[in-house]
Amino acid sequence: MPISPLAPARFPDLPDIAGLRLATAAAGVRYKGRDDVMLAALDAGSVVAGVFTRSATRSAPVLDCQAKLGDGTGPAAFLVNSGNSNAFTGKAGDASVARICDATAQVLGIAADRVFTASTGVIGEPLPDDRITAKLDELAAKLAPGAFEAAARAIMTTDTFPKAAGAVVDIDGTPVKIAGFAKGSGMIAPDMATMLVYIFTDAQIGQGDLQVLLQTLTDQTFNCITVDSDTSTSDTLLCAATGASGVDVTESAGFTKALHDVMLDLAHQVVRDGEGATKFVEIHVSGAMTNDDARKVAMAIANSPLVKTAIAGEDPNWGRIVMAVGKSGARADRDLLTIRFGDILVAEQGWVAESYTEQAGADYMTRQDLQIGVDLGIGGGMATAWTCDLTHQYITINADYRS
Amino acid sequence: MPISPLAPARFPDLPDIAGLRLATAAAGVRYKGRDDVMLAALDAGSVVAGVFTRSATRSAPVLDCQAKLGDGTGPAAFLVNSGNSNAFTGKAGDASVARICDATAQVLGIAADRVFTASTGVIGEPLPDDRITAKLDELAAKLAPGAFEAAARAIMTTDTFPKAAGAVVDIDGTPVKIAGFAKGSGMIAPDMATMLVYIFTDAQIGQGDLQVLLQTLTDQTFNCITVDSDTSTSDTLLCAATGASGVDVTESAGFTKALHDVMLDLAHQVVRDGEGATKFVEIHVSGAMTNDDARKVAMAIANSPLVKTAIAGEDPNWGRIVMAVGKSGARADRDLLTIRFGDILVAEQGWVAESYTEQAGADYMTRQDLQIGVDLGIGGGMATAWTCDLTHQYITINADYRS
Repeated sequence: MPISPLAPARFPDLPDIAGLRLATAAAGVRYKGRDDVMLAALDAGSVVAGVFTRSATRSAPVLDCQAKLGDGTGPAAFLVNSGNSNAFTGKAGDASVARICDATAQVLGIAADRVFTASTGVIGEPLPDDRITAKLDELAAKLAPGAFEAAARAIMTTDTFPKAAGAVVDIDGTPVKIAGFAKGSGMIAPDMATMLVYIFTDAQIGQGDLQVLLQTLTDQTFNCITVDSDTSTSDTLLCAATGASGVDVTESAGFTKALHDVMLDLAHQVVRDGEGATKFVEIHVSGAMTNDDARKVAMAIANSPLVKTAIAGEDPNWGRIVMAVGKSGARADRDLLTIRFGDILVAEQGWVAESYTEQAGADYMTRQDLQIGVDLGIGGGMATAWTCDLTHQYITINADYRS
Repeated sequence: MPISPLAPARFPDLPDIAGLRLATAAAGVRYKGRDDVMLAALDAGSVVAGVFTRSATRSAPVLDCQAKLGDGTGPAAFLVNSGNSNAFTGKAGDASVARICDATAQVLGIAADRVFTASTGVIGEPLPDDRITAKLDELAAKLAPGAFEAAARAIMTTDTFPKAAGAVVDIDGTPVKIAGFAKGSGMIAPDMATMLVYIFTDAQIGQGDLQVLLQTLTDQTFNCITVDSDTSTSDTLLCAATGASGVDVTESAGFTKALHDVMLDLAHQVVRDGEGATKFVEIHVSGAMTNDDARKVAMAIANSPLVKTAIAGEDPNWGRIVMAVGKSGARADRDLLTIRFGDILVAEQGWVAESYTEQAGADYMTRQDLQIGVDLGIGGGMATAWTCDLTHQYITINADYRS
């Protein structure tokens, strides 16, 4: 699969996080000739927060992680495999998770309830957990700081590039570091977090405070993206704070902003690697009756196959945006609606704007990064969503028999 | 555009409806070399009922029709054009509708508030209503019984075949006739009726009773189909009862069943002409907590791009069905879920069924008409939805610059 044309130029430089070590290995869960297991080891003192898919058919690892989140500060581990999601695998799936957690705990000398696993890949096939546990000694021996790119690559499935983002924020003269990576390309309509995201920081913060912060920022970042309106059974976002910097960030606006930016960067990279994507689209909705109505409109546009295929064809077909506003369920008034492509006024007062020319719209649509602005003109509600176009390549990727 | 592989073998024989005459003409609204305007004239004594899109950005003709429905029994007319939807055309669009209604009323010698128009095609462009009104004399002169196929063809846009269905039902020894036709192929997720549907009967029934019957049957037919989850700004279903048979059908179960079957047949034909469709898919959901929950699950499966691309690829990827159940918002329990392909038991008790083989699933998926059964195992709620697959051809049709 060729690398997405929307991919960043290179993998970013990430700061090392004191208290964190990473390792990867090739367990052969499904893919051959590449690493497919990632282990993150966290020193004692770390707190772990997480948000997960709200799918009613969520996977065995998600259910296990949700049960384990809490006040613990002992040493912890994240163990992730790609190639098989261990979703809809019944009681056997639960048993696989337990075996992996027990074995990881034993190899690292930590408590099993501090091992958080995730699995991503095909749904409904038994997870060959013995292949994963057979690699634990190798993984433990390899653990080292800074191996972010290998870790980000090991959790990829249909992704065409590894996704990572980091920040160093100065808090009262001490640098506090954040480093995260993610995977996700299809089945992306996060209903908590995108498929798999791991964020680490050396900040000091209580687990409860980190959990609240993570949920708030998820609603502004990962929950505002969509590739194909399909929500994964495996969405997992874990954030670990090792506390090694000694800097308390509980009330720090600077830390909140830096963590937000890292999460938004990762969320955007997931869209930029949307299956078959050739355009990155920001949809900004204002003037709605409520923020919730604005979000409905933004997501209706972002998920509309007819809007997304028009964008793929570089067709400034703003009539389809009107259609999506209409079907969203949000309150709207035809004659108060305003539509913009970037700075170009397209439609107002219930019809195409007098100043608009089809040529101006067509020229705008040739860009790789697009902004669609919709003002409903009836209130103060606002929301932003990000999506990609819908192309032949999406069909090719997903209409192939599983292989 | 080639004719859909799911098209019926031929246009059906429809009964003539006493009190109804039809005509078509080539007005050149957008398409060249084909009829694009359809006129239906109804004798005095006819009642008209209708259901329409609930889109907040519905078209000018829809708003006009909704205002006109009522107790009238004077002679009436339906005037429909293809090629331009007169949607999001502001006050100018309203004026176009008024001019068309006034001119039609004058030519036919009927009241303007008994003229019901519809327009289907591109959104946001001014409707050249003068081209339509210029053809009214020709249309009036051509009016004749039984010209159903020409009428069904004149209202087509991206449709690859004309859609029609009829019935003759014996009520106390007298035959009562029903004949209907429809158009629709893309932007199909009806939220009242599919794009355009016209049904005629010589039954005798009050307007209020016909309206209630039509709404009830729409919820069981047109509102249970989807091609691409995008709801039109123009959805219009009109049903006229001329009363010419002299048979009162107000309490007739036989008439209700016949009308239901005609509507379901037309709804299925819209799906069978879904843009790019190669498979017709029935999704039956049972065992839900409520009928509403069952409908949510059926529509989540029917609208999932990942389910629909898997079907296009003849991949029995039932994991994606589990995913769609999970994201639907309906109450579900992984371990009580049962999935079937036709009579083949695929998954139960939270995992793939012991008796299931991948080969049996793959063989089943090669069929043109597919049935997916989902039982949630927690209640008595049921629903059925119909959809088609999502193929390269859908992208080709919709990613082309408007032409």
